[in-house]
Amino acid sequence: MATQGQINLISTPISIAAVAYEPNKPLVIEDVQVAPPQAGEVRIKILFTALCHTDAYTWSGKDPEGLFPCILGHEAAGVVESVGEGVTEVQPGDHVIPCYQAECRECKFCKSGKTNLCGKVRSATGVGVMMNDRKSRFSVNGKPIYHFMGTSTFSQYTVVHDVSVAKIDPKAPLEKVCLLGCGVPTGLGAVWNTAKVEPGSNVAIFGLGTVGLAVAEGAKTAGATRIIGIDIDSKKYETAKKFGVNEFVNPKDHQKPIQEVIVDLTDGGVDYSFECIGNVSVMRDALECCHKGWGTSVIVGVAASGQEISTRPFQLVTGRVWKGTAFGGFKSRTQVPWLVEKYMNKEIKVDEYITHSMTLGEINKAFDLLHDGTCLRCVLSTSD
Amino acid sequence: MATQGQINLISTPISIAAVAYEPNKPLVIEDVQVAPPQAGEVRIKILFTALCHTDAYTWSGKDPEGLFPCILGHEAAGVVESVGEGVTEVQPGDHVIPCYQAECRECKFCKSGKTNLCGKVRSATGVGVMMNDRKSRFSVNGKPIYHFMGTSTFSQYTVVHDVSVAKIDPKAPLEKVCLLGCGVPTGLGAVWNTAKVEPGSNVAIFGLGTVGLAVAEGAKTAGATRIIGIDIDSKKYETAKKFGVNEFVNPKDHQKPIQEVIVDLTDGGVDYSFECIGNVSVMRDALECCHKGWGTSVIVGVAASGQEISTRPFQLVTGRVWKGTAFGGFKSRTQVPWLVEKYMNKEIKVDEYITHSMTLGEINKAFDLLHDGTCLRCVLSTSD
Repeated sequence: MATQGQINLISTPISIAAVAYEPNKPLVIEDVQVAPPQAGEVRIKILFTALCHTDAYTWSGKDPEGLFPCILGHEAAGVVESVGEGVTEVQPGDHVIPCYQAECRECKFCKSGKTNLCGKVRSATGVGVMMNDRKSRFSVNGKPIYHFMGTSTFSQYTVVHDVSVAKIDPKAPLEKVCLLGCGVPTGLGAVWNTAKVEPGSNVAIFGLGTVGLAVAEGAKTAGATRIIGIDIDSKKYETAKKFGVNEFVNPKDHQKPIQEVIVDLTDGGVDYSFECIGNVSVMRDALECCHKGWGTSVIVGVAASGQEISTRPFQLVTGRVWKGTAFGGFKSRTQVPWLVEKYMNKEIKVDEYITHSMTLGEINKAFDLLHDGTCLRCVLSTSD
Repeated sequence: MATQGQINLISTPISIAAVAYEPNKPLVIEDVQVAPPQAGEVRIKILFTALCHTDAYTWSGKDPEGLFPCILGHEAAGVVESVGEGVTEVQPGDHVIPCYQAECRECKFCKSGKTNLCGKVRSATGVGVMMNDRKSRFSVNGKPIYHFMGTSTFSQYTVVHDVSVAKIDPKAPLEKVCLLGCGVPTGLGAVWNTAKVEPGSNVAIFGLGTVGLAVAEGAKTAGATRIIGIDIDSKKYETAKKFGVNEFVNPKDHQKPIQEVIVDLTDGGVDYSFECIGNVSVMRDALECCHKGWGTSVIVGVAASGQEISTRPFQLVTGRVWKGTAFGGFKSRTQVPWLVEKYMNKEIKVDEYITHSMTLGEINKAFDLLHDGTCLRCVLSTSD
């Protein structure tokens, strides 16, 4: 097993990983063979990985695209261990963040200038394999284990496509900036890139988990004046204040539908709302609490498969706009390093989201914590 | 009864009008008393009025906000006959287009710079009365008749709020520019103001009636390259070509859902789509035929009350945007005169939408025509 100091071990294919063999069954910590990177691939020694609700969703079995056995995990940081043929932008020793949202800079999407989505490797990452040979690089006793979201970070080593690797400042603390692989950029970018909140705006945030708090932080830095947090757990307000939330509403404290409460509170509705839960009914509330004429609602949370949003078309005809965001609209390879710089310059928070630290071996305990209101992010060290 | 030449007859309260006494019963042509304009009101001699589907919708009884008896009509042109106290922007003799979408230039909406909606008189126009005394200016034998949309143009004389009157070039032919009171601006503005279509875009238009054709014209002038018309009546393609439609799809010719047909046809979907029917199921199709990452769908049609739109949130999370438009986002008093100028300069079509001309007395026949695929707009003269 490689340790943090050994970073160029192309001959070391054994990695401790947390394997999800079946939905809803505890992950199994065991030795996994990690094949060398092929052309256009990068093998990364993951040093720190956080857990995110999307991991829990797929693990739960509710994700119809979930494939088992697999190695979950998509919010992490590490060091390049080896690279495959043709990989030029990173080399062994580079500090990196794997990005579930690729950026090839060549496809129709990347070249459009209109979106951060990238189509290059989607057909492989969507089905748990690598593009080159449509196979997995993970195996246990010769039996393949599927990749997940093109990242599979619950493992000491992982193999990803080169278009999915953001090279970052080697001075950045990996145990912190691993969070810049998903939740924090998603929230900040929903505000900065997707909604484009202007100074003086009022904002409603549904759900005060990590993503909701990052939305609050984004809104504060964008100059929003009223930042209204909405959560069914009133205890979350104290923490949320530190991220910029300056008003709080608990829907349970009101008889009226929550959108009416917010409309009354804001003389007609908010300029921007953000759904950070993944609940389709709340997505409707978030749209309908927007101000007639211009209010924009952004769906940030990921709903369970098959669920649908709905509203009366009159809501849109009278000027509300319904949008969504994936990875906050950030171009991953280009902008994750920029987010790391912003963190290093103390322009964005990261440390404040980390409420728990554990080892990869304790991952099942960490998953339990996800359902605990006091946990924002739990960071697992892979090397202990 | 006043004739076209007599325009300052404040003492002339009798007007021939088409009164809707009950849903779905033929309109009754009869003498209606039209009270003088009160403070902030304008009495207009309507010379020409067209019919629009919203009139038919309320007449049908399906509009839960429809009030009877009422005088319908909202797409018209005429001459100011008299003005109430405090009215400064128009005077008797001015040529005008009544605007169901007011523009007061003072309310939160008007001053926002973000919307054409105006809140000033909505509380009265929404319930068929005038702001000043919360009463109607129309009566038959002393019994009040409700206003409709703040315009009630199926009458030789009507009274509207001064914030709902656009003063236009007196040289403009009223029998043509009456169309600039609703359908044509709605379509053009959906493209220019709401979607902001760029040169080179591809566009899908669902429904090739007047509004859909105006969308096509707007898209053509905006530089869209592919303008795909979608209608279940293939005969409409010939006319639509004149307005800019250069491809046609009849959903009945395909086994696959129409959004899949359009996605296949356009290598991933259109940049912009417009629903110009008012069918909530087609609104979904229109959203889902948009290109992942950036496609924007605009709801232009008005759905029946109580109906809802729905889709999977994934459609928005992967970058599609769902919007709507009312009066095409045009500021009515400011921009209707500008549209009239554009028509006079031959920069936009109007004449081409007029397929039928009749008199107010023939209005029931004209309503029947609305359901005939060959009719775009039927213009009624009130003076014959």
